Amino acid sequence: MTPLSADDDALEAAYARVRSLTAALCAPLAPDDFGVQPREEVSPPKWHLAHTTWYFETFVLAHADPAYAPAQPTWQALFNSYYQGVGTPYPRPRRGALSRPTLKQVWAYRDEVDARIAALLARGELDEALRFRLTLGLHHEQQHQELLLMDVKQILGTNPLRAPYRALSAPAASEPQPLEFLEVPGGEAWIGHAGPGFRFDNEAPRHPVRLLPYRLANRLVTNAEFRAFVEDGGYRRPELWLADGWATIAREDWKAPGLWVPDGDGWQEYTLHGLAPLQPTAPVAHVSYYEANAYACWAGARLPTEAEWEHAAGGVHADAQLLRDAEGWLHPLPARAGPGLLQAHGGLWEWTQSSYAPYPGFRPFAGSLGEYNGKFMCNQFVLRGGACVTPADHLRPTYRNFYYPHDRWQFAGIRLARD
Amino acid sequence: MTPLSADDDALEAAYARVRSLTAALCAPLAPDDFGVQPREEVSPPKWHLAHTTWYFETFVLAHADPAYAPAQPTWQALFNSYYQGVGTPYPRPRRGALSRPTLKQVWAYRDEVDARIAALLARGELDEALRFRLTLGLHHEQQHQELLLMDVKQILGTNPLRAPYRALSAPAASEPQPLEFLEVPGGEAWIGHAGPGFRFDNEAPRHPVRLLPYRLANRLVTNAEFRAFVEDGGYRRPELWLADGWATIAREDWKAPGLWVPDGDGWQEYTLHGLAPLQPTAPVAHVSYYEANAYACWAGARLPTEAEWEHAAGGVHADAQLLRDAEGWLHPLPARAGPGLLQAHGGLWEWTQSSYAPYPGFRPFAGSLGEYNGKFMCNQFVLRGGACVTPADHLRPTYRNFYYPHDRWQFAGIRLARD
Amino acid sequence: MTPLSADDDALEAAYARVRSLTAALCAPLAPDDFGVQPREEVSPPKWHLAHTTWYFETFVLAHADPAYAPAQPTWQALFNSYYQGVGTPYPRPRRGALSRPTLKQVWAYRDEVDARIAALLARGELDEALRFRLTLGLHHEQQHQELLLMDVKQILGTNPLRAPYRALSAPAASEPQPLEFLEVPGGEAWIGHAGPGFRFDNEAPRHPVRLLPYRLANRLVTNAEFRAFVEDGGYRRPELWLADGWATIAREDWKAPGLWVPDGDGWQEYTLHGLAPLQPTAPVAHVSYYEANAYACWAGARLPTEAEWEHAAGGVHADAQLLRDAEGWLHPLPARAGPGLLQAHGGLWEWTQSSYAPYPGFRPFAGSLGEYNGKFMCNQFVLRGGACVTPADHLRPTYRNFYYPHDRWQFAGIRLARD
Amino acid sequence: MTPLSADDDALEAAYARVRSLTAALCAPLAPDDFGVQPREEVSPPKWHLAHTTWYFETFVLAHADPAYAPAQPTWQALFNSYYQGVGTPYPRPRRGALSRPTLKQVWAYRDEVDARIAALLARGELDEALRFRLTLGLHHEQQHQELLLMDVKQILGTNPLRAPYRALSAPAASEPQPLEFLEVPGGEAWIGHAGPGFRFDNEAPRHPVRLLPYRLANRLVTNAEFRAFVEDGGYRRPELWLADGWATIAREDWKAPGLWVPDGDGWQEYTLHGLAPLQPTAPVAHVSYYEANAYACWAGARLPTEAEWEHAAGGVHADAQLLRDAEGWLHPLPARAGPGLLQAHGGLWEWTQSSYAPYPGFRPFAGSLGEYNGKFMCNQFVLRGGACVTPADHLRPTYRNFYYPHDRWQFAGIRLARD
Repeated sequence: MTPLSADDDALEAAYARVRSLTAALCAPLAPDDFGVQPREEVSPPKWHLAHTTWYFETFVLAHADPAYAPAQPTWQALFNSYYQGVGTPYPRPRRGALSRPTLKQVWAYRDEVDARIAALLARGELDEALRFRLTLGLHHEQQHQELLLMDVKQILGTNPLRAPYRALSAPAASEPQPLEFLEVPGGEAWIGHAGPGFRFDNEAPRHPVRLLPYRLANRLVTNAEFRAFVEDGGYRRPELWLADGWATIAREDWKAPGLWVPDGDGWQEYTLHGLAPLQPTAPVAHVSYYEANAYACWAGARLPTEAEWEHAAGGVHADAQLLRDAEGWLHPLPARAGPGLLQAHGGLWEWTQSSYAPYPGFRPFAGSLGEYNGKFMCNQFVLRGGACVTPADHLRPTYRNFYYPHDRWQFAGIRLARD
Repeated sequence: MTPLSADDDALEAAYARVRSLTAALCAPLAPDDFGVQPREEVSPPKWHLAHTTWYFETFVLAHADPAYAPAQPTWQALFNSYYQGVGTPYPRPRRGALSRPTLKQVWAYRDEVDARIAALLARGELDEALRFRLTLGLHHEQQHQELLLMDVKQILGTNPLRAPYRALSAPAASEPQPLEFLEVPGGEAWIGHAGPGFRFDNEAPRHPVRLLPYRLANRLVTNAEFRAFVEDGGYRRPELWLADGWATIAREDWKAPGLWVPDGDGWQEYTLHGLAPLQPTAPVAHVSYYEANAYACWAGARLPTEAEWEHAAGGVHADAQLLRDAEGWLHPLPARAGPGLLQAHGGLWEWTQSSYAPYPGFRPFAGSLGEYNGKFMCNQFVLRGGACVTPADHLRPTYRNFYYPHDRWQFAGIRLARD
Repeated sequence: MTPLSADDDALEAAYARVRSLTAALCAPLAPDDFGVQPREEVSPPKWHLAHTTWYFETFVLAHADPAYAPAQPTWQALFNSYYQGVGTPYPRPRRGALSRPTLKQVWAYRDEVDARIAALLARGELDEALRFRLTLGLHHEQQHQELLLMDVKQILGTNPLRAPYRALSAPAASEPQPLEFLEVPGGEAWIGHAGPGFRFDNEAPRHPVRLLPYRLANRLVTNAEFRAFVEDGGYRRPELWLADGWATIAREDWKAPGLWVPDGDGWQEYTLHGLAPLQPTAPVAHVSYYEANAYACWAGARLPTEAEWEHAAGGVHADAQLLRDAEGWLHPLPARAGPGLLQAHGGLWEWTQSSYAPYPGFRPFAGSLGEYNGKFMCNQFVLRGGACVTPADHLRPTYRNFYYPHDRWQFAGIRLARD
Repeated sequence: MTPLSADDDALEAAYARVRSLTAALCAPLAPDDFGVQPREEVSPPKWHLAHTTWYFETFVLAHADPAYAPAQPTWQALFNSYYQGVGTPYPRPRRGALSRPTLKQVWAYRDEVDARIAALLARGELDEALRFRLTLGLHHEQQHQELLLMDVKQILGTNPLRAPYRALSAPAASEPQPLEFLEVPGGEAWIGHAGPGFRFDNEAPRHPVRLLPYRLANRLVTNAEFRAFVEDGGYRRPELWLADGWATIAREDWKAPGLWVPDGDGWQEYTLHGLAPLQPTAPVAHVSYYEANAYACWAGARLPTEAEWEHAAGGVHADAQLLRDAEGWLHPLPARAGPGLLQAHGGLWEWTQSSYAPYPGFRPFAGSLGEYNGKFMCNQFVLRGGACVTPADHLRPTYRNFYYPHDRWQFAGIRLARD
């Protein structure tokens, strides 16, 4: 898990590798899958392909050459996600309405921009700022690789036909691992990224925090455990829920985690490899913050803060289940037997009780890139640890992911904590 | 314009002809165009292809054989439009969320059902009821041919790229024809379809109505005339509008007809053949009932009733601009020079001031087919006359089309009347 | 039932009589009842008091004197209902947000305007136009007397405490009257108001219509009959409903008529005299057009057209249950025994299947008063016959009331018809 | 500013004092003002009067006597705000729809419950738990005193007539005080309430935090300063706003703080004492978190965290402008001349950048009272310092107020911080 970065040669190789993984992830899709947007937060795969390309044009090529002429001038607004500083973005909820440009045109657009990037790299004159922008573009595309898989899972999994993204036989079932709480002493701890190496603006500065002693669960909450919550009336007991959570489950009519499908008296779960009986020892996935918090309340526990998480888990990488190529298993695996903190990286993102806020002394990236993270520091919660759909060389121990508390289309699970 | 019908041989030919026209109309589309739904009332082309096929399965094949096994059992609800009597229809606003079944699978589904229909016809035992159901299925598919073109126009025309459906050079411009009002004496008139021959349930029974003398415009309102209304502040003067219309244009922020695109000081108009400068002598298209009514008010006139329309225009077919194949011009043409009622059939549907209601003695089709028309007889207005996207052998002088007063994605124009 | 009108002396008396009835109708209310608006279509009683007064200022006093200074200049927009021609009306859904002006101030406002009207009448120079406007103002206030009682019924009846407006013991129960269908021959009939005498613009011109023979129920549908529809699953059977009706009952979660309150296995009904067990022989009230139409469908009948209604019932006034003072019974009574058409005037308004449209040759009132009726001729249905809350001297056989098909807070019931 | 508490005698006096202040605050209202709810978050004054009384019944009287019979059994659900544990609360957005019970009945209800509380106190047997509940009820009523004034300000101030709540001449204008940033060294600090004495559950436990050095503005942002932001296009520059904030001002069409009223080229401000020209040296009030954050961004500063605030300002009480009786000035005053931290208590609540979250080791109140605070710890931000409408003996240095970032009907202002 060496993060992306480096000199021009490495950049060229990294560029080729990242861009081709995106294409490889699209290989199992039917042409029909590229354009749909079943929910407002889901983007069509075609849009991801074009947006990540637009990114390199806007923030690298146009920056390198003030006279830069876009490959497709009329597409600029269409594939601007949210950068108000470089034009008026096309409305997000309407991305699924765009049958044009066609997928074929978008692949050609990617080729064209790849060629222009190659030419830029061939000229061999990238200054520090440009190298940073190109590296950022690769990290950006990696984020969209994860989003692509998340979105494909919604596109196929909320369709009544529930076709698999990529059929694959499941790993052998495993024994349940006992839940234990590991003791962590309090005191002063330092969190955040100190450099050198690439990091997003939101991971810095590294700074001290004061922790009280706490306990952290050795593994994630399992499907079997969460099913017990469901069967105990968890979704019908207001005393377990945050007020906004109670309103959310009523409005959305939620009675179980996302992509759980009733099956007689039991449940099936849609995975990227198809619909399958709920795996009791696998961690519960696709829960919102509200559900994670309600479960913790029911279990007599709480969610950890992000500082607690980073302090205890930041250095534990063994056995990380991350995205390494386009062939592997894309569903979180049960915890293996063993001591210490399990499932701490990869598998599923873990909700923390920390709202997404600037670290003390936070400075956003300069210019329009400052819109990358800072403007979202409100109303969202931090998740830590990465998921089975997170590219392996994208993650860092200081990495801060963030979603609204009602979101659950990301690969999110629950690790409990206690005072 | 001989309507569809007839003996088994003719039916076989008609079936082949209608089904292949649907395919031909799809030929200019990119694969991407088949799945999108830019507005709730628009259906993706793929959905039209599957739904019309489902129709033959559900109302013909399953009726012919009580043990009938659907070609695709899991698709039945997906392509049920609104027939509560044969299952729970998949929600209309979510049609654009269905990437599966794929287009390829849907084409194969059409082939399979075509083969089953051919086998049924080959058995040569169709009774009267079944022949009627098959004929109805063809008229139904013809309605969807028009809907397909309407929907494609929205899909391409509301996309900022505004690609043409089929590029074609415009017919030569024509001279404006003077607007005249033709006098029609009152008295008793008979409207509605008396048989024999195919008709929808809503066209019968033929019945007498009492008309007062009235005057009917010899041609449709032109783009030039409607532009004068716009420039006279038509969309800003509440006294011209129905109360619900005034609320609608405020909510939708309408300032001109549908698919008019501002172009400097003037306007362009999106047509199925691409974006083009507004043609002054062509009839104004894509206006809602509210806009038609406000224009009439501004012009010191009114809209005709459907009885007035049928009485005066029912027999005037000369020069009808209708859909005859997949090659022709798909935009309403200016009126030709000449006496009498012009543009009365084809070109554009004409709003009447008659709300869509049952004729005296109305009897809906039997069984679930009774949902075809009757349950929509509320809150909609009747349009008469057919459009350039209406199949030529689908139309009859007694034909009643109907839309909500806020709808304007259909090919609708304005013919004025006066007392 | 002599309609309001006449020479100056009679006008002065009529003015006093109408205005004091409004005040008398308010007498049973608590101060708290005057300001609330439990649903968008309900106006607070205080608003009715002020709006009817504003009407006399705007359309009579200001018309009589070009230099007229309003009694309360800052209130003009607040109490303009929908007349775009005389300013920008305050938004209807926000009427319940206005605690100021206070009720005390509004009563004083009424007194002030009454004094100014008295002074105008005392000058004795009312021309024809002004006399008409004053008469119209009285008819307008009578409409608001009915609205006031409708709105009070919602204000008190949708509050969980369900306090009576005016406690009164119910009339003695009555025997059910058999349902019969009276035969009416077809042919040419004339409907509409021919003058002289006051009428709204929407009742004219009188004109011929062609009717086919039809049958009309001798009385309204009763609570017992409608309960049988409910118990037969009427609200759960889509085949009985118009498409928009089916969507409406799903959205509103309707399972019975308005103001029916479940009571163990049975029902109670809220009336202006309090909550009481459902009276089986009383006519079913507070049904929407959708419910009326579904019931008719279930009963193998249909609703009459307004022409059928006026032709058959226009002259039948015996036994009309209308509003005569502020003391009487304000709930529809069961049909009395007897031959012929029963309950044809008063008791409940009767839904017709006629959408609200202009009569041939319709001319709206001149100027801003043209907004009175004409701009609502879209999306609504005509009701005929008057209700127990309609002032007796307000009604005429040609009177056209109108509501949206989803409305049911008016006193509306069902009379069946058959071909 | 001694907080409420103590032995039975003091409790009796405190009860009388708090309850009578509520009544005194209502004295300037017209009867009409008691029932309206102009926005969902505003409750009618009558509701506040009844709810605070219901509180004493439900959490004190019913707790003291298991056989307790409510004074008004049918009102229990109506005046339950959000306690799912003691029944199903009446929907908050419908509070303004309740004309019954009447104001007169509600005053009688208060008298009845006051008598029952007096009887309970006279029995002299209050145990610790009951004394706590009674004390909590008084703090609860004090919170509703502030809410009452906030809500009255909305009721009168968003009505176009903009009547004053209580006319009072403004204090003499003052000189602007220079803005200075006071340096605060970092290190370990302790925040939260350590007891003894009354505190809400959300203020505990007292715990250490680690602070970096920071600077805190000596006074609040003034109207003049905020007007400069407005005039610099502050509401039109996306780069200054959080993403959710930018969406909020678009949706709400905000162009200035709440209750600023355009007045020619300038602004007026609605205060509880009437509409008045904007006071340049007074602090800007009724800003949302989004506006506070955008202003800070524009000013090259940030908002403080709640720990920073409590550490620096927790002990500074001089000159607090709080609610001491029903007669005083109810609008924030300009900063006085002087050194150190000004306006730190009273005047206006100050937005912090801390989202409302449980302190480490947080334990909610036991039983249904646990719903008091804990379930709101999501999506809201903490405000500190109290306002001119906060009862003086209600506040503590550790007091945590909280609102959604889009809320601005509370008395909220801005204090800047810098790293």
